[in-house]
Amino acid sequence: MSPLQPVHNIAEICARHGITDVVLSPGSRCAPLTIAFARHPEVRTRVVPDERAAAFIALGLAQAQRRAVALVCTSGTAGLNYAPAVAEAYFQQVPLVLFTADRPPEWIDQLDGQTIRQTDLYGGHAKGAFEFPADLTHPDARWHAARMVSEAINLAQQFPAGPVQVNVPLREPFYPAVGEEIRYDKVNITQETGGSPQLTANELDELRQQLRQTARALVVAGQHPADAPLLLALRKLAAAYQIPVVGDLIANVHLPVGPDYDLRHAPLGRQDVFMAVPEAGLKEALRPELLITFGQSLISKALKNYLREYAPTQHWHVQPAGAVADTFKSLTRVIRMEPAAFFEALLSETPAAAKGQKQAAKNQQTRLVWQGTGSARDEAAAPKDAFATPWQRANGWATEFVAEFMQQPEQPFNEFSAIYRALQLVPDGAALHLANSMAVRYANILGVPAGRAIEVFANRGTSGIDGCTSTAVGAALAQPGRPVVLLTGDVAFFYDRNALWHNYPVPNLRIILINNHAGGIFRLIDGPRQQPELEEFFETHQPLTAENTARDFNLRYRAVRTFEELDKALPAFFAPSSKGSAALLEITTDSAANAAFFEHYRTAVRTSFS
Amino acid sequence: MSPLQPVHNIAEICARHGITDVVLSPGSRCAPLTIAFARHPEVRTRVVPDERAAAFIALGLAQAQRRAVALVCTSGTAGLNYAPAVAEAYFQQVPLVLFTADRPPEWIDQLDGQTIRQTDLYGGHAKGAFEFPADLTHPDARWHAARMVSEAINLAQQFPAGPVQVNVPLREPFYPAVGEEIRYDKVNITQETGGSPQLTANELDELRQQLRQTARALVVAGQHPADAPLLLALRKLAAAYQIPVVGDLIANVHLPVGPDYDLRHAPLGRQDVFMAVPEAGLKEALRPELLITFGQSLISKALKNYLREYAPTQHWHVQPAGAVADTFKSLTRVIRMEPAAFFEALLSETPAAAKGQKQAAKNQQTRLVWQGTGSARDEAAAPKDAFATPWQRANGWATEFVAEFMQQPEQPFNEFSAIYRALQLVPDGAALHLANSMAVRYANILGVPAGRAIEVFANRGTSGIDGCTSTAVGAALAQPGRPVVLLTGDVAFFYDRNALWHNYPVPNLRIILINNHAGGIFRLIDGPRQQPELEEFFETHQPLTAENTARDFNLRYRAVRTFEELDKALPAFFAPSSKGSAALLEITTDSAANAAFFEHYRTAVRTSFS
Repeated sequence: MSPLQPVHNIAEICARHGITDVVLSPGSRCAPLTIAFARHPEVRTRVVPDERAAAFIALGLAQAQRRAVALVCTSGTAGLNYAPAVAEAYFQQVPLVLFTADRPPEWIDQLDGQTIRQTDLYGGHAKGAFEFPADLTHPDARWHAARMVSEAINLAQQFPAGPVQVNVPLREPFYPAVGEEIRYDKVNITQETGGSPQLTANELDELRQQLRQTARALVVAGQHPADAPLLLALRKLAAAYQIPVVGDLIANVHLPVGPDYDLRHAPLGRQDVFMAVPEAGLKEALRPELLITFGQSLISKALKNYLREYAPTQHWHVQPAGAVADTFKSLTRVIRMEPAAFFEALLSETPAAAKGQKQAAKNQQTRLVWQGTGSARDEAAAPKDAFATPWQRANGWATEFVAEFMQQPEQPFNEFSAIYRALQLVPDGAALHLANSMAVRYANILGVPAGRAIEVFANRGTSGIDGCTSTAVGAALAQPGRPVVLLTGDVAFFYDRNALWHNYPVPNLRIILINNHAGGIFRLIDGPRQQPELEEFFETHQPLTAENTARDFNLRYRAVRTFEELDKALPAFFAPSSKGSAALLEITTDSAANAAFFEHYRTAVRTSFS
Repeated sequence: MSPLQPVHNIAEICARHGITDVVLSPGSRCAPLTIAFARHPEVRTRVVPDERAAAFIALGLAQAQRRAVALVCTSGTAGLNYAPAVAEAYFQQVPLVLFTADRPPEWIDQLDGQTIRQTDLYGGHAKGAFEFPADLTHPDARWHAARMVSEAINLAQQFPAGPVQVNVPLREPFYPAVGEEIRYDKVNITQETGGSPQLTANELDELRQQLRQTARALVVAGQHPADAPLLLALRKLAAAYQIPVVGDLIANVHLPVGPDYDLRHAPLGRQDVFMAVPEAGLKEALRPELLITFGQSLISKALKNYLREYAPTQHWHVQPAGAVADTFKSLTRVIRMEPAAFFEALLSETPAAAKGQKQAAKNQQTRLVWQGTGSARDEAAAPKDAFATPWQRANGWATEFVAEFMQQPEQPFNEFSAIYRALQLVPDGAALHLANSMAVRYANILGVPAGRAIEVFANRGTSGIDGCTSTAVGAALAQPGRPVVLLTGDVAFFYDRNALWHNYPVPNLRIILINNHAGGIFRLIDGPRQQPELEEFFETHQPLTAENTARDFNLRYRAVRTFEELDKALPAFFAPSSKGSAALLEITTDSAANAAFFEHYRTAVRTSFS
């Protein structure tokens, strides 16, 4: 038997666990893994030279495919370049299995090339770290080796999903003989099935009872992948209990699940706007007694701050397993169920009936109002005294306010309005990737057009700028038939240019680059913009345009500097590519004009609410 | 007192410890540190947006300045992007002090933006990790805070030097009031003085005795910064004991220390050539009984393999402190002294006199042969039976062989010869940075012209390609009056393009880019070049040229594809810049032609030795 047979079997075990995609970075030490994956008929391999980009591309693939993606790198600092994506995957709960080739233990700390201390390389940012046996001669070692790969894949995919390292020490020779075929053994794999926690009937009764006792329950959704059963359950819950549901774009509760549910109970998304209104009366009217949350992080700092100040009496967080954050400093109960299952369970006894509100239940069953195109406000018709009413009104006002504000004539060309116009044309069915830091904030204020199925992604596990483009590239590779739109700023874009440095075309990728030649966010926040260090140390003016980058990577490139040019360019930009190449639209704005217009917007929000 | 006063004092403590340079990356959480350093009159700050590049630039600055450089980044994955440079600094023993801004402990794992687990972020790759107090109200906490910064700087600079993290949790507000001046307290700092270990007279006598008892002692120098006292001691030792001294380019033993010492005892550097000669007789003649080493890693795999196979009876490694690698599987003694002090101590009793070789001692004192221009071989005149003789002959043969081989007419344009020609023109006094992976190997075969003061650097702590350009940029920033020449390949160059993405001109930087549009190394080594995966998975063909990058970063750019173009371009390329811009010379070669010519060279080495 080849001494490398257990290493070659890694590819087989991955394939049998359903891993279809592997991102490789070139190296010599990792050659046995590279060859094993490259020759496996059920695995698709892609080579990405910069490991930082490679790992974020794998993250994008895994997000899109909703299953683990494997990575292979050589020994040394290669694996350290994975670290930013590993942390993002850990906090965003995306399954990655990282195979880091290593020297065998006797050659660690011996001044050999590409040798660092790789055991448990990611510390607190990996769910687990396995050490593949260096010596595979004993049959128990081979059993251990195979078992460990199954365990690593299962661990990566268990909720909460995340990254897992398998460090693979390898001795030479790394390569099969010339012309030698490698084979894959039929090794045992350990599959993992089921495991959704359930509450007892009594526990559920008690929670239903508590929910019924408050007229002021609010659901806030954190970052969550699109999930149709969850969306349906939320609509039913909202209708049955008259509970407002609020979610940022990355919560993906804005996605249409029509046509069976009442638009009046569609989740609300304009909290960044109406929470900025300084009206104590409004804030009191919105205050929840019982807050129910699920999912991960929020973008809306305004909502976070509001709920910390106007704290609920009770805060339930629904999450089947894992550590739970106390985002609003008010957490009173962790509910160990899948959110969709929990909301369905709350509905299994009709609370509306219990409260005599049969009409609501009837609406829920029969009305077919929402076809995914209307606006929430027009049809909002909760009972006048319902807690949902001020939330719906505020959200409806905010939606209209933004639309009117953005279309005012005589405004200077600025990034906020440019993004608004671009978002109106994002195709139905697209995946929208929002880069940190300003792109995701602007987009969360502005929203996407109602009723359009635009799934939204952002690296909000760690909110880094370091891999936003790579993540979108991974998504585009995973779904060649789907438009993937990346909205990004210049610092994030140039930081991660190596996202495009590989040989795989992504004709479905559309990059909207807002170039203000600086970290413009620093001019928008109060502290730094008043410091003499603003331009050199915070904004960090940078002169690049993307034109040369577009040349390097063969992107269809267009630069615009006025609304007219933008409006003219957008339709062609979003149109399918006939040339097989991605497109980049560079929107050049002035940082000071952006800051002035955004300040104008903020003033208008504060004074326009009625 | 401002609650941020102890944070502002960090800049003062650094300055009083002699840290003059700080590399900042933009962020909000780190603003108090940024402002403290930016406003400190004795500290020079530079802003680099990509933290991966920032940390390697700091490494280059610290190498050149031979003292610690500080880094400041914001919270989240920013600090993880430092990790590759941190590992390189750890293994190359370069002092860095990393101030990573963080959220306070109560906000870790709470889904807040840019928040990861930063305590001890670099694990086994930092010399230490300090946690700055989050609460600075108690006077003891302020004393602790100041003390810790001193300790961190001292630890980073103690031998073996390396990176140290100070994690700084910060609560808002981050910024001084508008117009507010910040001040620096006169805090206590703890300086550290001395600490060179010495052997006792008896211990030294015993070692001298052992050295005298062998006629076959060899000194091998590992990676080491240029060190004139060490070079002088080595020359004297070589002359007094007739010991050959061998060192790769990165050992910097090739540097001239003239004019007082005999060229016959100049260290040897062509081991990559003559160790490839398959002559058992030669190998036996070169075999040492006693091997004495100092410094860090070797480039020459041929020398490593030789010494593993023809192992010495005794192997002493001279290193004042820290873990010691057993590179040749033969380590018998660790000598805890500074190498220069140890070699001087061996000389303090004249062993030549003890052996009756007075002439050697006389030569050492009086001959003024070497003016830094001759060739070692012509004047080599050790006693015929001396152990040094076959080493000097082999080295002399190799030097001439290479010069003749490289100048043969009718050769195809290839990177090996192109590098040879470029190396001949590297200016006296330059710092030469050799990128991983092929650039450093080629250069170590070819050497630099004898007698020219060309100090050589390479990231051989981890041998990564990830920060070679950034390191050279740091060196160029540190020494504006010195030419800094980077020899690099296309994969390393494009990997680390963000090295150039900042606002600081480096007119003294000269980048020689060998572009074979692939990781050409894989075609040169036996395993991968015979695999069907060679081009896609190992070489990873990449189509970029540097022209667009040169446009982006305003580099003087010239591309050459023939020897004629190369020879014509080199003088202007190396000439001082009148425009304040760095220069990039792109040498485009064909990977297959390179491999064929290098194979031709290897065959010639094997068959030409006489």
